[in-house]
Amino acid sequence: MANGRLYLDHNATAPLLPAARAAMIDAMALPGNPSSVHAEGRKARALVAKARDAVARLAGVPAAQVTFTSGATEAANHVLTPDFRMGRAPVRLSRLFVSAVEHPAVLAGGRFAPDQVTIVPVDGHGRIDLGALEEALAAQDPSDGQIMLALQLANNETGVIQPVRQAADLVKAYHGLLVVDAVQGAGRLPLSIAELGADFLILSGHKVGAAKGIGALISAGETLMPAPLLAGGGQEKGHRGGTENLTGIVGFGAAAEAAIVALGSVVELLALRDQMESEMRAIAPDVIIHGGEVERLANTCFFALPGLKAETAQIAFDVEGAAVSAGSACSSGKIGPSHVLAAMGADAELGAIRVSLGRDHGQEDIAQFLDVFKRINARRIARQGA
Amino acid sequence: MANGRLYLDHNATAPLLPAARAAMIDAMALPGNPSSVHAEGRKARALVAKARDAVARLAGVPAAQVTFTSGATEAANHVLTPDFRMGRAPVRLSRLFVSAVEHPAVLAGGRFAPDQVTIVPVDGHGRIDLGALEEALAAQDPSDGQIMLALQLANNETGVIQPVRQAADLVKAYHGLLVVDAVQGAGRLPLSIAELGADFLILSGHKVGAAKGIGALISAGETLMPAPLLAGGGQEKGHRGGTENLTGIVGFGAAAEAAIVALGSVVELLALRDQMESEMRAIAPDVIIHGGEVERLANTCFFALPGLKAETAQIAFDVEGAAVSAGSACSSGKIGPSHVLAAMGADAELGAIRVSLGRDHGQEDIAQFLDVFKRINARRIARQGA
Repeated sequence: MANGRLYLDHNATAPLLPAARAAMIDAMALPGNPSSVHAEGRKARALVAKARDAVARLAGVPAAQVTFTSGATEAANHVLTPDFRMGRAPVRLSRLFVSAVEHPAVLAGGRFAPDQVTIVPVDGHGRIDLGALEEALAAQDPSDGQIMLALQLANNETGVIQPVRQAADLVKAYHGLLVVDAVQGAGRLPLSIAELGADFLILSGHKVGAAKGIGALISAGETLMPAPLLAGGGQEKGHRGGTENLTGIVGFGAAAEAAIVALGSVVELLALRDQMESEMRAIAPDVIIHGGEVERLANTCFFALPGLKAETAQIAFDVEGAAVSAGSACSSGKIGPSHVLAAMGADAELGAIRVSLGRDHGQEDIAQFLDVFKRINARRIARQGA
Repeated sequence: MANGRLYLDHNATAPLLPAARAAMIDAMALPGNPSSVHAEGRKARALVAKARDAVARLAGVPAAQVTFTSGATEAANHVLTPDFRMGRAPVRLSRLFVSAVEHPAVLAGGRFAPDQVTIVPVDGHGRIDLGALEEALAAQDPSDGQIMLALQLANNETGVIQPVRQAADLVKAYHGLLVVDAVQGAGRLPLSIAELGADFLILSGHKVGAAKGIGALISAGETLMPAPLLAGGGQEKGHRGGTENLTGIVGFGAAAEAAIVALGSVVELLALRDQMESEMRAIAPDVIIHGGEVERLANTCFFALPGLKAETAQIAFDVEGAAVSAGSACSSGKIGPSHVLAAMGADAELGAIRVSLGRDHGQEDIAQFLDVFKRINARRIARQGA
C-alpha cells in the first residue's frame, strides 16, 4: 500500500488520542494510590477528580454522578441488576427488556436471571419496535415491581440510531428505568442524559480515544443506584471497590474533552461517509448498505456484497491493507453470524463488512479504501462470471 | 527534606516500574482491539499472550490458567462465589470461610450471601487459628456441598505470613477449595500455586510495579472455574467479558518478570528492614511492632508509638516528607480503626503506622526515615512529659 495500513475499525476500538496518551504518561510519574491520605495520594486523587469532571461534562451530569468502571462491559453488568437501592432502602426490579440488537454485554442481561429478560424485536432497519415494546410493557403486572429497559443509543455494527427518547417516554409511562448503552454515541451524538430521558448511561473509554480497560456508569441522580458489583475498599463512593485505574481514568478524561469538541465536526464526517457510500454504489450497484435508509452514526457503514461472504471479504481487505471488521470484535478470533443482521431479517449467513471511520479520516483515506473496494469487487464479479 | 519526598507505602501501591512504563508506552502505539481478526488486532493479541506467559510464570502455571481482571478486587468478587462450573456442569458451594484479617475485598464475601460466610479468628500475631478452622470445617455437613476457604498469603497491614500450606492440607481433608489472596506476596515470596496447595490465586498488578487497574485470577486447572462475573463478548476464554486492557496487561507482564527477579534480593531487603526496626527500638524502646515475633514480608513494618494516635502520626510523617499509611489505602479519605489490629486483640483505637519498602530502597532512605521517626518520637516524649 502506497499509504501504509488503513485502520477503519473505530467502532471496535479507536487509536489512543495524543492528548490521552500525554495525560497517561504524566500520571505514570505519580507514585500514589488515589485512596491514600498522604501528599502522593492527594495528587493522584486530584487527577481522578479532574477526569471525572470531564466525563461528567460529556454526559451532562454533575461529577458525583460518574462511577468509573473497568469498561462498558463492567458498567453493563453493574447496572443490569434486579437489586437496586434507593438510598439505603432496597428496590427490587422485576424484569429487564432489551432490544434484540444490543451488544452481547447487554444482551446477556447482567445479574438478571435468564427468565427475567425479555428480548424486544427490531424492524428491518434494526430499530426497536416501539409497538412491540409498548405491548410487552402493558402485559407486565405492576405489582411485580419496577421494570428496566436497556436500549443502545446507536448500534455498534450498523451505526443505526435508536429512538431512545420515544422509548424513554414509554418506559416512564410504565414507571420503569431506562439504561442507555451510549458507547458508540459518545463524541458522535449529543449525550445529555436528561434529553435522552435515561436513568443511566454506559460509556467506554477506548471507543473515544482513551485506553482499553476504562469506562463509566453515568447516573441521572445519586439516590437510586444498583447494588455494587465489585465489593471491596469502598472506592467510587461505595459503588465500586478496587484501586482506581489512575492512568486509564486520566486518559478517559482527556478523551472525553476531545469527544465534546468532536461533536462539532460530525457534519464533515457524515459528508465524507455519504460520499464514500455513493462511490461504493457506483462501483457495485448491488451493494447492500444496512440501515442506509435511516439515521445512522456519521462514521459507520455496514455493507454486504452479494456472493461474497463477509468473513472472506474481511480477510481480503486485511491483506490489501485495510483493517475492517465482519461483525463486532468480541470473543477472540471467533466470528459467528451477526445477531444484529439476524434480528433485522437480513442475510446473516452472508454477513456484512463494517467500515468505521475516525475523526481524522479524510479524502485520501476514502480514496485508498475505494481502491481496495474496487479490486475486491472486481474479483467478486469475475468469479460470478466464471 | 534534603533528599526530597520518601515514598514508603508500597503495600498501598508501588510506583510504576520503568520496564512496565516502557512496555505500556510501546503498546499505546497499536491501534487494534485484541479481539479483532485483522493485522492490527493480531498484533495486540500477541502482546496480551506474551504478558500472559509472564504472569503465568510468576504463579507457576501454564498461560491458559491466567484470567486477566481489572484488579484484585474484581478477581476476588469473581472467584468468591457459590456458583462454580466443572466444565459445563454446575458445582454449588455451600459456605465460604475467611480469616478475620483478610482484605476488605475478600472479607466482603464476593457473591456468597452474608449468611454463607464464616469468619475464622486469628491469633495475637494475626495468623489464622488453625484449630478454630478445623473445628469450623468439621462442623459442616458435607452433604450441603463443597466449602471454600479464602486466606491471604501475607497481610497487607502487618506483612504477617499466613500458614497457607497447613490451611490447604486441612481444606483438602474436607474436600474444599482454597483461594489465596497473594496480592502482597508477589515478588516477595515464592508463589507456586502447587506448593501453596491452592486452587486459585488472586494477583494485583499495581502492587508489583504495574499500573493500577489490572490484576489476575490464577487457577490450578482449567476445568473447575467460577461462573463469570462480567458477561459479554466472551473474552478470556469466556471467563471474563470486556475488551482487554491492553496497556495494563502488557505493563503487568513486564512487572511480573521483574517480580520473579526480585525474589532473589528479598534477603537484602529483610536485612534493611530488620536494621531499621532495631534502630527504631533504640530510639523508642516502647515502640510496638505488630507481628514482629513471627514470619513477615521483608518489606513491611507496622508499628505503634504509645500515646501517639496513628492518624495523627501519619499526618506528621507526611508533613515531614515521608509517605506512610495508617491502615490500608481503601475507601477514599476515610480511616477507621483497623479490623486487622482489632482481630489480633491489639489497640485498634491507637492504630498503627505502616512503613512498606520497595525493592530500590537503601541505607539512605532508612536513614532519612529514622531522622523523621526520631523527631516525631521526641515530640511525643515532650508531650508526655508535659
